[in-house]
Parts: sequence; structure tokens; C-alpha cells
Amino acid sequence: MNATIITIGDEILIGQIVDTNSVSIARHLNAAGIVVHEKLSVGDDRGQIVAAIERALDSCEVTIVTGGLGPTKDDITKRTLAELFGSELVVDARVSEHVERMLAARGIGFNALNQSQALVPACCTVLFNAHGTAPGMWFERDGHVLVSLPGVPFEMEHLMQDEVMPRLKARFALRQIVHRTLITAGLAESMLAERIAPWEDALPDYLKLAYLPAPGVVRLRLSAYEVDGESVSEEIERQFEALRGMIPQYVVGYETATVQECVHRMLTERGRTLAVAESCTGGAIASRFTALPGASAYFLCGVVAYANAVKESVLGVDGADIARYGAVSEQVARQMAEGVRRLAGADYAVATTGIAGPTGGTEAKPVGTVWIAVATPEGTVAVCRQCGTDRGQIVDRASAYAIGMLRDALRDA
Amino acid sequence: MNATIITIGDEILIGQIVDTNSVSIARHLNAAGIVVHEKLSVGDDRGQIVAAIERALDSCEVTIVTGGLGPTKDDITKRTLAELFGSELVVDARVSEHVERMLAARGIGFNALNQSQALVPACCTVLFNAHGTAPGMWFERDGHVLVSLPGVPFEMEHLMQDEVMPRLKARFALRQIVHRTLITAGLAESMLAERIAPWEDALPDYLKLAYLPAPGVVRLRLSAYEVDGESVSEEIERQFEALRGMIPQYVVGYETATVQECVHRMLTERGRTLAVAESCTGGAIASRFTALPGASAYFLCGVVAYANAVKESVLGVDGADIARYGAVSEQVARQMAEGVRRLAGADYAVATTGIAGPTGGTEAKPVGTVWIAVATPEGTVAVCRQCGTDRGQIVDRASAYAIGMLRDALRDA
Repeated sequence: MNATIITIGDEILIGQIVDTNSVSIARHLNAAGIVVHEKLSVGDDRGQIVAAIERALDSCEVTIVTGGLGPTKDDITKRTLAELFGSELVVDARVSEHVERMLAARGIGFNALNQSQALVPACCTVLFNAHGTAPGMWFERDGHVLVSLPGVPFEMEHLMQDEVMPRLKARFALRQIVHRTLITAGLAESMLAERIAPWEDALPDYLKLAYLPAPGVVRLRLSAYEVDGESVSEEIERQFEALRGMIPQYVVGYETATVQECVHRMLTERGRTLAVAESCTGGAIASRFTALPGASAYFLCGVVAYANAVKESVLGVDGADIARYGAVSEQVARQMAEGVRRLAGADYAVATTGIAGPTGGTEAKPVGTVWIAVATPEGTVAVCRQCGTDRGQIVDRASAYAIGMLRDALRDA
Repeated sequence: MNATIITIGDEILIGQIVDTNSVSIARHLNAAGIVVHEKLSVGDDRGQIVAAIERALDSCEVTIVTGGLGPTKDDITKRTLAELFGSELVVDARVSEHVERMLAARGIGFNALNQSQALVPACCTVLFNAHGTAPGMWFERDGHVLVSLPGVPFEMEHLMQDEVMPRLKARFALRQIVHRTLITAGLAESMLAERIAPWEDALPDYLKLAYLPAPGVVRLRLSAYEVDGESVSEEIERQFEALRGMIPQYVVGYETATVQECVHRMLTERGRTLAVAESCTGGAIASRFTALPGASAYFLCGVVAYANAVKESVLGVDGADIARYGAVSEQVARQMAEGVRRLAGADYAVATTGIAGPTGGTEAKPVGTVWIAVATPEGTVAVCRQCGTDRGQIVDRASAYAIGMLRDALRDA
């Protein structure tokens, strides 16, 4: 069972927005055993929309379209779909009432543009959008299904989950897709591939292995598409176990787990606490932990000590050391980690101080130089890392290194 | 001049990663006057890759392909391109030397997989990748250009900027694309559309208006594609000014500006300083400011005071007030803002304290309840906001509200 995802909007083609809708739609379809064959983005242009949809209807059983359903003139998806399916636009009473009520709650008048939100092609099944004003629409032609959803991520997500997926599962007999992901750290992609080559070469044809490198980790994904019965599920589990057994010391997690989730779990299980002192990472490390539900059980305090005066007054860094060694130095990183650990009364602490750029670099300490220190009940360790040349990249990499060092400290504790 | 962007990788089709590469490529092409006609994502499958590329070569002058250039078996783009252009793979000496040197610096051995990174189709022009091991490749056929780039965002970005764009500008006579974006807040999309309808209806045909709603703002983008000469640029500026003049009180920024950039600019221009105390936003507000180059000029200190003890010891919040009113209360928010302002010696401070969930909500203070306070030289204001039901959404919305309050305080100062 194949699907095409089409996202519509000039803002996608000029790079004004990042398309996260198709990611979420792809996950929903995959989880139900529908293979996404192609993802396609086209502009708010009648000809392009028609061509993309006709091609999708020819090649796939399911087509999911998002975007272009707003009330303004630039949004033409609904009119185009009505023409394509040879259907007139008619007012849907339930949608009309819903839109008027939603707008009234926000103190917005029900004008002609809003009224047009309740117009739908007569031939479609309306998918009620409880969270927004543009309804979803379900069309069928020659056994193919086309669904049109609004582009607002939150509304699209609810419609996919509550309306589209249950209908697709009822409409088609779907098979299984199984993905298992092993997250590794400490071995480069090429080294990893060499290490597991005999196992990879002997994989059955229906199992596909993918390497997904990201800062600090390489993810290995084992996939079986459209499988039937228990035996394939068992085989993928068996192979996944075999893979894990070959590289146990490099495994840091499974599926979508991140290194911070690994640290989160270890701290939670052991009842230990954490504090963070950040200069160049500017709150990114604190954010990564506090984004996880339950972080308040161990995350006591983060200090973003951008100003040197704050490093001294809040964290107790020695001003003479800042003057002598510079704010980006082993001495300052160590004192920041130890200072925030003491301040918060935490078991573990991590600190970063570096040059995030674009200015501030010198020959001895170029942009991207970051000192990272981890303070534990057993003592403090510090390392210097080159984290790249771009401000965002430096923050990401330094955060990843720092969290990786925390994990190592916890693993060895 | 039209272009197609093709991103390759099963991880895109199963929704395992968000494709940001095509966003960046689209921006580069647009800025040079090349219209992105279509964006397409296909899997690591020979047949799919060939079909997508053949279609792109038929319909566009320029095709940019990313992904599938890693050293492992699942990456087949290079082999597929060699076949498609009828060319053998040969070793590029410069790339080979570079890969070996890069790996040596990281302490990684130069094995057969890494050596394969230096293989390139004989017919292509190699685009040297200073930041990674997979080179870019430039192909030409019947006047069409196809460029293949690695999927690592950072490496792709450098190659686009340093190698691809200069060559495209030299190779083709390009026309202009002009986009101007007005960022508004305070008026719903449909109300905005009604307000500017007479102006919108009278726009010349070659100018296109788009509405882009996002949390708290509606962006209005005016675009002219492939224009010639000064007159069109002047007309778009004239129309943009006319639009601005119709809704001056709702304009909060221009182009890609965010509200934090607006605050960043005001603080920098006025030489005023900022401190942040965060509970539920957990470092997200500090991160948004410190991500901006030059933030160190005004950003003195952030404190992520998750533990109540830290709210007391570091920020000087009254423990009796926490016991009496709760950590999520107007009193605590005010004391956090005033405390961090005093601690850092800053002119302005903002604080958040709320229930990010999924647990911790009560009937009186459900998940999503957030108190936000802004402390200024003139005094302190505090408001309570409902920020949603999802942890990530609550952090995002509370951060947006807090930064918006800072902007209002600075605007009124």
C-alpha cells in the first residue's frame, strides 16, 4: 500500500518555512503499514497542484495533501480540488456554525472570508476540524483516496489522528511496517560499518539497514516493509539483538532516544540531581533537559553566566583566573561546574565556556573553541573541543559533547 | 529559470528526520533569482532516484540533489548518478588525501569504506567539501545542470554558498526575485484580509500576496518573480509602503525578524541589559536570545530556577510566599524577575513560572498555567496566561508571551 504526501504553498518553495507536516503525516502512515512512496511540495498554482495530484492518484492508493485551505485569496487548494473532482462548492452547515462560534469566542467578526471556510466540494466527505476553521476533506476516485488537510500543524495533527487514520484503517487491509533503531556513540560511521559488515551482508533481503549519523551519535535503523505474520517480526527482533550484541559498549539508546534522555533516566533511577552552568551554550543544555517530562525530579538549577561579573558573583569563579587565563579556559570551566554544583547542592554539574562567534575568536582560541567541565562527587574533569564555525552548530555540538560527558560520568560512577 | 530540489533518504519518507536542507537550498536559489518549481523527496532506491532525476532534468534547468552520499551500503546516490550519466567511478586524488587527513585528525583509520568516499563519476566536476568527507558533484547534460550534495546540513550549506551559487551565477543569466515580508500582530488573518482588500485587489498581476499565520503573528509576503530592471523593484517597495501605511499599529517587524530579534535590536541600540529567570520555560528564553550573534552585549545572566530552594537561595524569592501562594503565582513570578534583575545588575528582567506538565496540574492551576513577570527600571508587571496542554507547546507559547511582554515594555519605555 503506497502513499504520496503533497504539501502546498509558495512559502515552502521559497524556503520561508520548514515543512514539519509531512514528517508527522509520514509517521502516522508508516505506523499503520502504509509506505510513503514520495513527498512533494508545489506552489499555490492551479496547474502545479493539478499535475501533482493527478500523478499521485495514478501511482498510489492514498494521497494526503496539506496546505492552501486558508480564507485568503492566495489559498486555492479547495477550488482546485472541486474542479479536479468535477464538483460544486456547497455550504456545510455544521462547519459554518462551528467557524462562527470559534471566531465569536476570539472576538472576531464572521465576515465573507470566514463564511467561505464553510464551503466544501459537494462530492467530498467533510472531516470535522474541532481545532480550526478549515475542515479536512476526503475524496475517492477509482478506488484511490485523496485527503486534503489544513496546513496549520496542530490542526493537521488532530485531523490525521482522529479522522484520517481510523478511516484509512477501515477502508484498506493494511500490512505491517517494522522499524527498530539502535543509537550508538563513540564509533565513526565507517568504523561501525566495518565492524558489523559480516552481519549486515548476511541480512535477509526483506530487512534494510540504514546509517543515520548526527552530532555525537550514529543511529542504525533496521526496517522491514509491508511484512506479514509473526515470523518477520521475530526475525527483525532476532537480528536487532544480534546487532546489539556485536557493539554493546557503543549502544546509548533505542528508537528515538537522545543522550539527554539517557542521562535523564540514569539520574531519575538513581535519585541523583543535576545543575548546569552555561556560557556559550546559552541555556541550550538546560532546555534539552527541562523539555523532558519529569525533569523537575533531578534538575535543580541552570545558570546562563554570559557576563564575566555573573561568573564571579553567582558561580564564584575567581576574577583573577578570568583575567589570567581568559573566560574560555580550563580553569574557568572547572570553577563554573564546581560553582553551580555547590550553589544548587547538586550531585552532578556540567559547565560550558566557549566562543560561539561570529566574533571574539583569536588565533589561540578561534571561534568554536569550547571548554567543557563535569563536576561529580568523585571530582571534576574538563576537556577542550572544537565545535565548528557556525554559531548554531557550535551551540548544538558543545551541548551534545557536554551531555555526552555527563553520560560517561554517570556510566562510570 | 526553474529549479527542482530532490532530497534522498528513507529517513525522510518514514518521518525520522525533518528536512531542513531543502529550505536552505530554496533560499539560496531564490536569492539568486532561480524559481524553485518543485521539491521532491524519494527513498534510497535506484528506480525512484532515476525517475525523479529524469523528470527534473526534463522540466527544469537546474536540479539540486542532497543525501545518499555516505560511505555505507544504504547510500546509493553516487553509483546511481554514475550510471545515469553513463560514467565510471574514478578516484579523485585531492578528495582522497583530504578524507585521510580529516579522519586522521579525529583518530579514525582510513578503511575501504572511507576510501570509497574519494570515488567520483569521471564526467562530473568535483565540488570540494572542506567540512566533510563526501564531495559535491556538478553534472551537465543538454544545457541542464544537476548538482549532488551531501545530506549533512552544515556541509551542504557550505557547498551551496561557496561552490554551487557562484557557479550557477556564472553559468546562467539570472533574473531577480524580490520578496518583502511584513510581520503583523493583533489582527486575525481574515480581519487583516478584509482591511487591506481594496489594496490587494488593485495589485499589479506580477505581484503576489501571501498570508502566513503563525503563533501570535500573521506574516504578509509580497513577491515578484523573475523581474527585470529597476521599475519592478520600485513598484514592490511602493506597494509595500502602502500596505504598511494601512495597518501601522499592527506592524511588529519585517522579513524574517522574530520578536526576540526586535528586543535584541532595541536593547543593543539603547545600551540596556537583560537578565532572565525561568522555571517552566527551562532555559528556552535564554536560548532564544543567546542564539543571536551579539547577544553578549546585553544578555548578562539567565537562571533556570527549577527547584524551589534555588528560587529562594539564588533569586531571593521569599520561601513563605512559595508556601502560601505556590511556586506558580504572581508573587513568585514578580520576585523571580526582580531577583534576577538585582542579581545580574540588569536594566530589564523577565521571569516565568508555570506548570509545563504532563503532571502537576490542579483544578485551580491546570497544566499550561504560566505566570510571567517583567521587571524594568519603572517597576514590575505580571500576567497569567494559559499556554496550552502539551509540554513543548507550553514552553514555546510561554516564551513567546514573555518576549512579547519585554518588547511592549521596551516600546513603552
